[in-house]
Parts: sequence; structure tokens; C-alpha cells
Amino acid sequence: MTIHTHQTAPTQFVEANGIRFAYRRFGKRGGVPLVFNQHFTGTIDHWDPAVTDGFAKDREVILFNNAGVSSSSGEVPTTFEKMGANAVAFIKALGLTKVDVLGFSISGFVAQEITLQAPDLVRRLVLVGTGPRGGEGMATRMPEAQQIFGATYDPPDEIWLSVHFTRSNASQAAGREFLKRFRRRTENRDPQVNEKVAPAQTEAIGKWGAPRESPFEYLKSIRQPTLVVNGGKDVIIYSVNSFILQQNLPNAQLILYPDASHGSQYQYPELFVAHVSMFLDA
Amino acid sequence: MTIHTHQTAPTQFVEANGIRFAYRRFGKRGGVPLVFNQHFTGTIDHWDPAVTDGFAKDREVILFNNAGVSSSSGEVPTTFEKMGANAVAFIKALGLTKVDVLGFSISGFVAQEITLQAPDLVRRLVLVGTGPRGGEGMATRMPEAQQIFGATYDPPDEIWLSVHFTRSNASQAAGREFLKRFRRRTENRDPQVNEKVAPAQTEAIGKWGAPRESPFEYLKSIRQPTLVVNGGKDVIIYSVNSFILQQNLPNAQLILYPDASHGSQYQYPELFVAHVSMFLDA
Repeated sequence: MTIHTHQTAPTQFVEANGIRFAYRRFGKRGGVPLVFNQHFTGTIDHWDPAVTDGFAKDREVILFNNAGVSSSSGEVPTTFEKMGANAVAFIKALGLTKVDVLGFSISGFVAQEITLQAPDLVRRLVLVGTGPRGGEGMATRMPEAQQIFGATYDPPDEIWLSVHFTRSNASQAAGREFLKRFRRRTENRDPQVNEKVAPAQTEAIGKWGAPRESPFEYLKSIRQPTLVVNGGKDVIIYSVNSFILQQNLPNAQLILYPDASHGSQYQYPELFVAHVSMFLDA
Repeated sequence: MTIHTHQTAPTQFVEANGIRFAYRRFGKRGGVPLVFNQHFTGTIDHWDPAVTDGFAKDREVILFNNAGVSSSSGEVPTTFEKMGANAVAFIKALGLTKVDVLGFSISGFVAQEITLQAPDLVRRLVLVGTGPRGGEGMATRMPEAQQIFGATYDPPDEIWLSVHFTRSNASQAAGREFLKRFRRRTENRDPQVNEKVAPAQTEAIGKWGAPRESPFEYLKSIRQPTLVVNGGKDVIIYSVNSFILQQNLPNAQLILYPDASHGSQYQYPELFVAHVSMFLDA
């Protein structure tokens, strides 16, 4: 039997909700798989192999594109509620009845929706670089994010140096190591998303982030043990939102990393895998 | 050679600054020792053996009474600056030139002072259940703390069930296990503090917690890698102060534990020792 890694795992497909979902599945079988939910305009290939292969040593890892993203068919819905429903359909289509769910950035919103909509499906929840409905500065892009997403980059994937890392020398050096790992897979790489993805996801972000009465009340319904992780200096979804998640979820641990922005898990991949593994195995 | 533990380590004494400091020292030698700084009115015997012996497997542990506390001579100063200076004198009197420092509750203030006054002495810093100068709700006792410290307990050490743990069944059950461990040492136990300790420490707390201009600016001078740990529901020093510490220290990681109050490290001793050990060994 071939032991697949982030580099070699083939892209597979499964149908559900009228959507053909692209996914990759690898790692040690037998336990509860960990399902990864990706950030704004990201695909299966936007994860860090140091993170995914790090987890794959001890558990099955499932990466997938939600509806309308890259090699998955369908369209990106304009609400996270519908993205969550699609993700639940995908997980069930694999025949799984219990998973751990990791959501990064806007797919931390998807991960919350999965847990709210299918509580029996989710054993433990990991929320990375994300926030609650109606969180601080989440209705529209904050000045730092406007600047970062408004600039041009050559090569284009250098945008992630600004999105995921702080401006410090140490963080940028970690970012360049991340980019090397990120680019390492060259065969059967997932295509970039089409031009309809960003507008649909942006519309959904506006609805999720909009201010409202008692915005954090819904978090009381998420009873799963939850680990909230972020950099202490996240300029995309402000770090205070991770604190708000921890304060309002009934059973949540919080970890904030030093001198780290939105992609703290790529700045400290070994530490992140160790912390999350301790949490998942508790 | 006898291998000592929390239960068996003899109380030793060392002179410095005209004070005879009581301390206990045990655990695996050869690395950087970890010096523990105790909470309000607490002594050497207020630490949890599950924590101290947990660390002692891999490093030397030093517990001590600062000036005027229990079996140490002298008087409790009415500023944390002076308590920090006494702690520095104690550490140097042991002939140590580099230590890791752990401070819990008001001795998290002492630990910050040690680091500010003797930066070359401190390798890494662990701040547990504590806050910055002029932190939120730190100038006077908040309503929860007034209620807890104003009540009577029989036996008296049951006060720690209210100080260190939340009111949930799970937290209180962990608290009763803590109390069993806490009471286990019966021989050569440290005496309770005299009646002058609480007023002096309380006066010092008032000065430390008082509001001021740019209260958190001084934290930029603490360059050591720092781990900030607390329960997410600390009612003695509000948990938001741990977030403030992380946000303002140049190189700090934050961990908040679920359903835990001031003594989260006694609710999750194995997890706490594992997290802190990962940090100290990084």
C-alpha cells in the first residue's frame, strides 16, 4: 500500500448535494479524521505541508474544496450557512459519522456552521485565525487588510507573506520558508479559483460580520471542546475576536502566538501541530 | 543521594538583604532552574504537588517564601518593586546566574519586577493568573473577590475552592482533588503567614493596580520569551488582563483554559506542565 503525503495524495472526487467535491485524504487511519476548511480564495494546495503532514503522522487528514472552489463543481454560496451545509454534505458523502473539524479564517465560520448544523458529526473543533458572527472589525475589511489585498505581488503568491505574517524580520523569514513548502507540490496541483469566488465569499463575509444584537449568544450552542488559535497580531481578523470566541464558547481553550499575524500556524507549524494534537488527543 | 519531591524536600535557608529566606529545591539538576513566586498570603506549601513534581521530572524547581512570609524573616514590603528586589537578592544568594521565573497571581507582579530589575538573570518568564500594572479591575477587589475573601470557610483551606476554581461541577471536582494533593504534605509544613502579611500585600496591590497614563508601556521592556496562562473565567484578576499582557509584551504566548478561574494550573495540572515545559524547552 502506498503511504501518501501532502505531496503525493491524489485528488479524489465525491458527489453530494449535486456538487462534485474535490478532496485529498491521507495519513494514519483508524482514528477520527481531521477535516480542513480553507481560507478566502484558497484551494487544497493552500495548506502548509508542515502542518498537514505533521498531523498525518498520527491521524487521517482530509483536505477539500467547498462548492464552487477550484476543482469542485457548483457555485460558492453567498452565506456561510450554505457553505456549512455543503461541507456537511461532503463529510457525510465520504461515509463518515464522526470527524474533528479545523477551520481557518473565513472557513472558521464554515467550521462553526458545520458544528451548529450537524453537532453529532463533530467531535472536536479547531478555530484558527477566525472570529464570531458580528465580531470586532469583521463587517468590512479593516485598513490593514484593504492595503494588503489592494496591492499587487510578483510572484502573486507572495501576497501570503503579507496576509499570514507580520512585518518583523523573524516573521517574514518564517513566511519565506512557508512559501517554499507551499510551492513544493508541482504535480496535479489544484487550479486557481475562478473570478466568481472572491465576490461571493466577500458577500458572505459582509453578512457574517455585520453587527447585530447579542452577537455572541449563538456560541453557547457549540458544546464541543474547541481550541481557538491565532497570532497575537492578526490584521485580517483582529486577534481580539479569538479572545471573544474563547470567552463565549462554553468549552474553549485559547492559544495566541507571539509576533504572529493571520497565519500563525504557518509561522510555528511544529508547535501548532503539537498543541492541536494534545488538544485532539485529550 | 536522596531524590527529593514536593513531599520530602527539606526547608532550607539562605541570607540576603538582611533577610533569612526559606526555600525548597528539588528535581532534576543540570538545566535552568524554575523559580516559583507565590500568591496572596500563600507559602511554600500552597503549591500543587502535581505541578511542582510534574516540572521536577525534567528540571530543578525552587519554591521560596519572599521576605516576611511564613518561615522567611523580615517584613512584607508595601510595593511589588521591593518584593521584586528581595526576590532578585534571594536568587542571587543561591549563586544562580540564570533562571526561569514563574509568578502566580500577585507574584506575577513580582515576576515582572524581577525581570525588569535583573533582565540578565531571567531566561524565560511564565505569568499565571496575573495582570499588568493598572490592568482592568485591578485597583481594588472586584465584587466576586470581595465576596470570596469576605466569607468564612470550614476547614479554612476550602477558600481555595472558591479562589482557584469556577462554580461548575467539573471545576469544583477538580478543586477537591487539588485540596487532597495540597494537604498531602504533613511533616515540616510551612507555618501560616502572620497577621501583617495580608495588609502589606493588599497595600502593594492597590499601588500596582492603580490606573495611570499609558499603563502598559513598561511591558515593552520585558524582552524575555513569556508564556501567559490563565483560566478563561478568572474572577480574582480578570482574564482580560492576561490578553492585555500578551498584546503588550513583545514576545508572549497566551494560553487560556476553559471553565477555569484563577488557579487554572491546578485544574489542568498535567496539561499545564506539558504546555509550560514545551515553552521552556523551545
